[in-house]
Amino acid sequence: MSQIPDTMTAVEIVGKGGPDVLVPSSAVPTPRPGPGQILVAVEAAGVNRPDVQQRMGAYPPPPGHSKLPGLEIAGRVAAVGDGVTRWRVGDAVCSLVNGGGYAAYCIAEDAVALPIPAGFDMVHAAALPETIFTVWNNVFDRAALKPGEWLLIHGGSSGIGTTAIQIAKALGSKVIVTAGSDDKCRACVELGADRAINYRTEDFVEIVKDATGGKGANVILDMVAGDYTERNLIAAAEDGRIVQIATLGGADVKLNIGRLMVKRLTLTGSTLRPRTREVKAGFARAIEKTIWPLIEAGKVRVVLDSTYPLSDAASAHRRMETSAHIGKIVLKV
Amino acid sequence: MSQIPDTMTAVEIVGKGGPDVLVPSSAVPTPRPGPGQILVAVEAAGVNRPDVQQRMGAYPPPPGHSKLPGLEIAGRVAAVGDGVTRWRVGDAVCSLVNGGGYAAYCIAEDAVALPIPAGFDMVHAAALPETIFTVWNNVFDRAALKPGEWLLIHGGSSGIGTTAIQIAKALGSKVIVTAGSDDKCRACVELGADRAINYRTEDFVEIVKDATGGKGANVILDMVAGDYTERNLIAAAEDGRIVQIATLGGADVKLNIGRLMVKRLTLTGSTLRPRTREVKAGFARAIEKTIWPLIEAGKVRVVLDSTYPLSDAASAHRRMETSAHIGKIVLKV
Repeated sequence: MSQIPDTMTAVEIVGKGGPDVLVPSSAVPTPRPGPGQILVAVEAAGVNRPDVQQRMGAYPPPPGHSKLPGLEIAGRVAAVGDGVTRWRVGDAVCSLVNGGGYAAYCIAEDAVALPIPAGFDMVHAAALPETIFTVWNNVFDRAALKPGEWLLIHGGSSGIGTTAIQIAKALGSKVIVTAGSDDKCRACVELGADRAINYRTEDFVEIVKDATGGKGANVILDMVAGDYTERNLIAAAEDGRIVQIATLGGADVKLNIGRLMVKRLTLTGSTLRPRTREVKAGFARAIEKTIWPLIEAGKVRVVLDSTYPLSDAASAHRRMETSAHIGKIVLKV
Repeated sequence: MSQIPDTMTAVEIVGKGGPDVLVPSSAVPTPRPGPGQILVAVEAAGVNRPDVQQRMGAYPPPPGHSKLPGLEIAGRVAAVGDGVTRWRVGDAVCSLVNGGGYAAYCIAEDAVALPIPAGFDMVHAAALPETIFTVWNNVFDRAALKPGEWLLIHGGSSGIGTTAIQIAKALGSKVIVTAGSDDKCRACVELGADRAINYRTEDFVEIVKDATGGKGANVILDMVAGDYTERNLIAAAEDGRIVQIATLGGADVKLNIGRLMVKRLTLTGSTLRPRTREVKAGFARAIEKTIWPLIEAGKVRVVLDSTYPLSDAASAHRRMETSAHIGKIVLKV
């Protein structure tokens, strides 16, 4: 590890608040990989909503993990810890990480990192882990979406939405999305969505009922909550599964639980970050087997909204907070 | 079928309202079994909450089924329809039925009826189907309670509660119940509950946390809803499953869906009556294999509150509506 400097460039969160609390520093101690971990020389890092929440003080990093923002990276292995079996120094990897992605070096777990898909550059590879793990975990593992079923995705043009559309279509499901503009709706249809609903001008409950022959959506992936929750219950099919992955519209909801009983609905949800290394490694194995071939076959593409230099992470966050973006925002290191 | 009269005694619902709208009649047309159905000469019929709701006009019978109340019966097969393979005239059976139990004769499905357990009389056998099917379907099939897990049962002294306590304990789980008096709590502990909470004097959220070493309940069987729903989310363990089977405290609920995400909870529920014959037959097979041996071994007993003659169904309903009963109320035909 002689060529690895003791300090590195990274973006720190100084205080709680707007994008300006993201401040680059060149004197951050370089982390050292523990047992089962690899140190990655980061070339690109994905930007995600939880980074924004962490910056605002609403999503503190789990104890024992990096306090730097950044939940996904791509780069080359710079050092390996004890017991690492899969990766060697110099290997190109992308990985979900427990924070610390906005930096020149970042720790990843041996069993969670994945190879860069054939034909992918580092920027596109860095945009994969967070959305793919989230979609796999929630839509396929937790909600068990099956071929032929209808998936309703709220926030279809987000990083998670654009990924979910493509994977669900590639695996044989039918997809309806909601999005906030006609441009965003068009982008979703181009990615394969069977129907895109502009939620500013159309009522998703009615359109979902209509599109599904009155039956409703079998699975609903929701990042809104608020008054969407009760409407999701109405838009869901019998035996439908509603999976909550964020609460951008407010976490306090009202609902009629009789609806849930009569249609035998399942309302569930999850957060990815606090899951154990073992759980994430299990997702990684399933994803490498099921989703990586779809990516390498060109059936699931990364929708890239924009890139920013690491030193200008603040502008990347500003872009995300406008909600004007379509697809992923990535930092180049 | 020559010995079967054209008309029979049955309890009709004349209007919507209190117990007095339950009126015995001796001139009700005797039903005829269709394909795959058996006609049972009823000797005993269980009384259930949905009968009360049906009487009040809040729970109309599904189209095509008897308008008479009564969802479970025991008796002897009086006639068989085409294609019936399991049962012959004279066989003793108990069965979940699609209404019509408060009568001298009632239709049951060949594949849903079960044999009377060894040593059981008709009154006790008639008290089995509704609670056993409900507990099996919700606690074991839907919520997948596993040995070693904690089950919280609201309404522990109800027919469903007393059944759920015994089955969960017999299959290796730990059980906490809530009930509305010290007498009811004592009855639940005698049936095997590890802890009974008098909800009039104790806070179930605190006691569940305490009893489970801070972890919470893995499965919650709830018939209350209302302000219990949010408290259930707080009392549940990570990856917990909350199953709603009734809404005695009101179906409109408020909850913080962030709690559900962070603990990866599942909120679900079901109603039994509208399920298809095939689904009920599947439950019947699983129950005969898994629960019937526990019943015949004396590990799951029927807690019988009281019996009434069929002609006095009104008094049986009055008893249920006091909520003073512990266990099942059964009509003798």
